[in-house]
Amino acid sequence: MEIAVLGTGGGARAHIARLAGLGHDVHVGTRDPEATLARTEPDMMGNPPFGTWLADHPGVELHTFAEAAARAPELVVNGIDGRNAVAALSAAEKQLAGKTLADYAVPYLYHPDVEHPWPTPWGTMPRLDPCDTDSLAERIQRALPRTKVVKAFVTQEQDTVVDPQAVNGGDHTMFVAGDHADAKAAVIDLLRAYGWTDILDLGPLVSARGMEMYAHMHSAIGFALGFGTPFGIKVVR
Amino acid sequence: MEIAVLGTGGGARAHIARLAGLGHDVHVGTRDPEATLARTEPDMMGNPPFGTWLADHPGVELHTFAEAAARAPELVVNGIDGRNAVAALSAAEKQLAGKTLADYAVPYLYHPDVEHPWPTPWGTMPRLDPCDTDSLAERIQRALPRTKVVKAFVTQEQDTVVDPQAVNGGDHTMFVAGDHADAKAAVIDLLRAYGWTDILDLGPLVSARGMEMYAHMHSAIGFALGFGTPFGIKVVR
Repeated sequence: MEIAVLGTGGGARAHIARLAGLGHDVHVGTRDPEATLARTEPDMMGNPPFGTWLADHPGVELHTFAEAAARAPELVVNGIDGRNAVAALSAAEKQLAGKTLADYAVPYLYHPDVEHPWPTPWGTMPRLDPCDTDSLAERIQRALPRTKVVKAFVTQEQDTVVDPQAVNGGDHTMFVAGDHADAKAAVIDLLRAYGWTDILDLGPLVSARGMEMYAHMHSAIGFALGFGTPFGIKVVR
Repeated sequence: MEIAVLGTGGGARAHIARLAGLGHDVHVGTRDPEATLARTEPDMMGNPPFGTWLADHPGVELHTFAEAAARAPELVVNGIDGRNAVAALSAAEKQLAGKTLADYAVPYLYHPDVEHPWPTPWGTMPRLDPCDTDSLAERIQRALPRTKVVKAFVTQEQDTVVDPQAVNGGDHTMFVAGDHADAKAAVIDLLRAYGWTDILDLGPLVSARGMEMYAHMHSAIGFALGFGTPFGIKVVR
């Protein structure tokens, strides 16, 4: 299957490698492919330059966001950072029309004037924008009414999303939310291919608010366990 | 042990009954004991009038917030609703000084003009205030600097908090956060008495932001499982 992944960060790389390993043709989208390949420094999360990573992953193609989306007939994974996602996706609205967009972006607002800083291993916790009365996923859906947005992946570690068995044999829960049943079914199919066995449909896309706002709890749990410790969240019932 | 529970809602009743069952002397605080006992209608969450409930729980005493706090030498549980908590606790600042305050309030703002309503079985989802850049627990701590605030309980169902074994034999996780190690230890002792075996210390009180913001995810999970279905959250690692 031809699948597009928009973004070149750590989460996007996890999806790209796993999808390629599952035998899919992966089309990677970035704002400016030449600029992305010209980078020689690690990104803000410490990931090595994408060009270095790409050299180890033959067969993966780098395009603009719109070109990558155009090459995927059904399924696009959105890993564009939260601050730029709506604008970048809107510019590819035509190429995304009619398709499923599996969105895992967190709407972090990196801003030096955050009130009451929350210390983290990398400085302070960014605030979320939007938050509580809206979500990034809903903003994307409103900006792209012809696309079927599904919020997923966001509540688990990036590496765990594509390899759930790595944590406690896979005995934890993945959530999805969206307003289009067929799009949720497509994302659930992908999750089952990744190895997820407990997938809970949280209903309409408005539930993405809770999924995005869980980011702070996720971070707090990660700090408590020791930064970098793999973990998952399970709904026990 | 003499323990105070401030509040008369569903969560407070769960704590009161469980603490009494564990052999503690429970002093219940309410804004106006006479007014609370005079009520004949269910509260906004559908709980029967507190006077009716109290008649089935002999030995439980009803006082003002300040009186109940004064009778507990060490430990006070805060179940005053989020909108009124800071003001009501500030009025009992003297009686709470030097004590541990285990706070489980959610700062819901019930307001008819919520943007982008989130349908729920009871109408729409209330927004949170504060949210993201502050938390109710931190506000309480700033208002009562002589009290040791611990955020706890808030991420699980009220009945599950006091009886964790009722869900999957108790195999799920309780979180605590606070700036005072001795106060967290006291709350953890109480949690162990309730039956909790997996208690994760999320560090400083700033982590209460994530715990309070998890409320939306908690609601979404509850709606997905069927409103009223007992469940818990477990950190799998």
